[in-house]
Amino acid sequence: MKISILGTGMTKFGELWGISPRTLAREAVNDALSDAGIVQKDIDLLIVGNMLSALLGNQQHIGALFAEELGLSCAAFTVEGACASGGLAVHTAVMGLLSGQYKTACVLGIEKMTDHKPELVSSALMAAGTNEERLSGGTFPGMYALLARSHMSAFGTTSEDLASVAVKNHYHGSLNPKAQYQNQITIEQVLKSGCIADPLKLLDCSPMTDGAAAVIVTSKKTAKKSVTIEASFVATDSLGLSTRASLTELSSSRKAAYKAFHQAGIKPKDCDIAEVHDCFTIAELLALEDLGFYQKGKASSAVRAGEVTHGSSKHLVVNTSGGLKACGHPVGATGVKQIVELADQMRGRCGKRQVHKADIGIAHNVGGSGATAVVHVVKRNG
Amino acid sequence: MKISILGTGMTKFGELWGISPRTLAREAVNDALSDAGIVQKDIDLLIVGNMLSALLGNQQHIGALFAEELGLSCAAFTVEGACASGGLAVHTAVMGLLSGQYKTACVLGIEKMTDHKPELVSSALMAAGTNEERLSGGTFPGMYALLARSHMSAFGTTSEDLASVAVKNHYHGSLNPKAQYQNQITIEQVLKSGCIADPLKLLDCSPMTDGAAAVIVTSKKTAKKSVTIEASFVATDSLGLSTRASLTELSSSRKAAYKAFHQAGIKPKDCDIAEVHDCFTIAELLALEDLGFYQKGKASSAVRAGEVTHGSSKHLVVNTSGGLKACGHPVGATGVKQIVELADQMRGRCGKRQVHKADIGIAHNVGGSGATAVVHVVKRNG
Repeated sequence: MKISILGTGMTKFGELWGISPRTLAREAVNDALSDAGIVQKDIDLLIVGNMLSALLGNQQHIGALFAEELGLSCAAFTVEGACASGGLAVHTAVMGLLSGQYKTACVLGIEKMTDHKPELVSSALMAAGTNEERLSGGTFPGMYALLARSHMSAFGTTSEDLASVAVKNHYHGSLNPKAQYQNQITIEQVLKSGCIADPLKLLDCSPMTDGAAAVIVTSKKTAKKSVTIEASFVATDSLGLSTRASLTELSSSRKAAYKAFHQAGIKPKDCDIAEVHDCFTIAELLALEDLGFYQKGKASSAVRAGEVTHGSSKHLVVNTSGGLKACGHPVGATGVKQIVELADQMRGRCGKRQVHKADIGIAHNVGGSGATAVVHVVKRNG
Repeated sequence: MKISILGTGMTKFGELWGISPRTLAREAVNDALSDAGIVQKDIDLLIVGNMLSALLGNQQHIGALFAEELGLSCAAFTVEGACASGGLAVHTAVMGLLSGQYKTACVLGIEKMTDHKPELVSSALMAAGTNEERLSGGTFPGMYALLARSHMSAFGTTSEDLASVAVKNHYHGSLNPKAQYQNQITIEQVLKSGCIADPLKLLDCSPMTDGAAAVIVTSKKTAKKSVTIEASFVATDSLGLSTRASLTELSSSRKAAYKAFHQAGIKPKDCDIAEVHDCFTIAELLALEDLGFYQKGKASSAVRAGEVTHGSSKHLVVNTSGGLKACGHPVGATGVKQIVELADQMRGRCGKRQVHKADIGIAHNVGGSGATAVVHVVKRNG
């Protein structure tokens, strides 16, 4: 697989009440085009990753809508898989390029979540769950709380362990001028924050966010190949938790990562940076284990010891963007933003949060409570 | 492009109040698997074409949902582009196979529209339009009425011409046991039916429909190649009518068809059968002209003369399934059903509506008022 990342762009993530989806899209895509050094007519495919535009914005058909808004005269459509929509959009663009049908694609991940009452947004997000989960009053914080309880029960994971993920990601967010939250927090603050779904506190949860992220990818042989996508895999599991074989892992993450590492010809230990799906703090611990960076039950002590924090002497730095927790989680944009962060790290553009050695990175995007997982391997060349 | 269609399946189309989306999906996909002579584990990609599940069913993430329901343990996600979602799903599966990432894909087009009040469904469908169209009280019948008026004004097209499309497609529907409407109608009946959006009468409009259609496609060299997809193209235009250069054509249809014919190495005159997007009768006339079968303004007399009716001595038969008009239009399923109909015709499975010579076919699926068009060329081999 030789897909080059030509350019990246993203808006500030946050509560952007005064900015329309069209403006968000223009900002992210124009930045990506300018970064790539190409113009609209060079794009022959637009893939939009989005989950909530229908339910919250009453707008579908946004592939064509954004193509028009962006001045793109090309094939365009939307890809959806709940909070994995962004990663799936990247995957679809990669397939389009590998197929030979398209040469240069723009992937736009976009979501507008904060213009509505939080209850309405929570309800819309639950459209990614099962009927049974909805009928029983389930919410995603509640479902991830079940996963956290299982992990605690199986491996002795503590609330402090969970909190340490939030502390690290807020630290990384404090180094990222585009992050929704740029304030540092302490373990004590996390533990004292309001209980959302026991054991998850408010500061264990990613926020509701507006934002857009875009990447320009190409299969052109003449393209600069400073950063390439080396693998792209999708795996699924049962939609709801009740039929899973295990609640201490997301098997979709394991499957997608296994295939992606194999395709890229690398092992977890080869990775320098990872953007993983920390929609809740427990999700980052699960990811670090499911992706093969740590054995089951071993990620929490590593995070607490600062092994995956920016500036650590260890190899792997996780969620340099601040992750979903601090950078924010505009659901359809998250999977694209992860690729933006990896590519920007590899090109030395990350300012205060720049990682010294950023040659191989992995992006891990999850839909729902793990029914969908998308894993990309990104590499710096030369 | 050498993608083989291994199997097809579809449910009856109609008002299926007693049948859930899961049951529809199982019926269509199990029929397709059985037709293909393969089992679930042979599928490594599921693409779902759907538009309205979020707004009408409050359910997203249906790639993973249906993968679980169908016993598929593979990559799965949803593709959306309004009423072109089904065609886009086929296109995405074709890209997936051509990319080499996947070997055998299942495409499921599905929609459940009749469980709700028609006003709610109309409103949900308008999510494919622009804000301006919604604010001005526009509906799709109204927008296609504008296209009809333009065509009438430019080419002298009459209400009788429009009605003749409905008469033909109801005749074809009368030969299709899975069609929503199997009753024949007359031009007089169309003209006397209630006015929906002048000049479009009730019987000029496709209905609201429940249904699912599935195709199994593969890139495996060892696969039987009796029916193959020879071209797959997507084109876009502005989302709304107000910024179009012309209202007597859908330029997206023209662009997608031009590329598809070129890729397949054929010309319009080589086609034996066509499934075109007749959401309203005017849309079939536009399609016949935009796809290159007739010059602008010439399609209506051809349809009235019965040139594209089953049993005609002319070459091309159009909408043998009954089209959207009579077979029904479950929006996300339509583009997949078109491929099912072409493949079934090519394998001599169409009973009373079987076309004598069905070697080359074209499927044409439109989103909204033409912002998206998808064209596939399908061929019988040997």
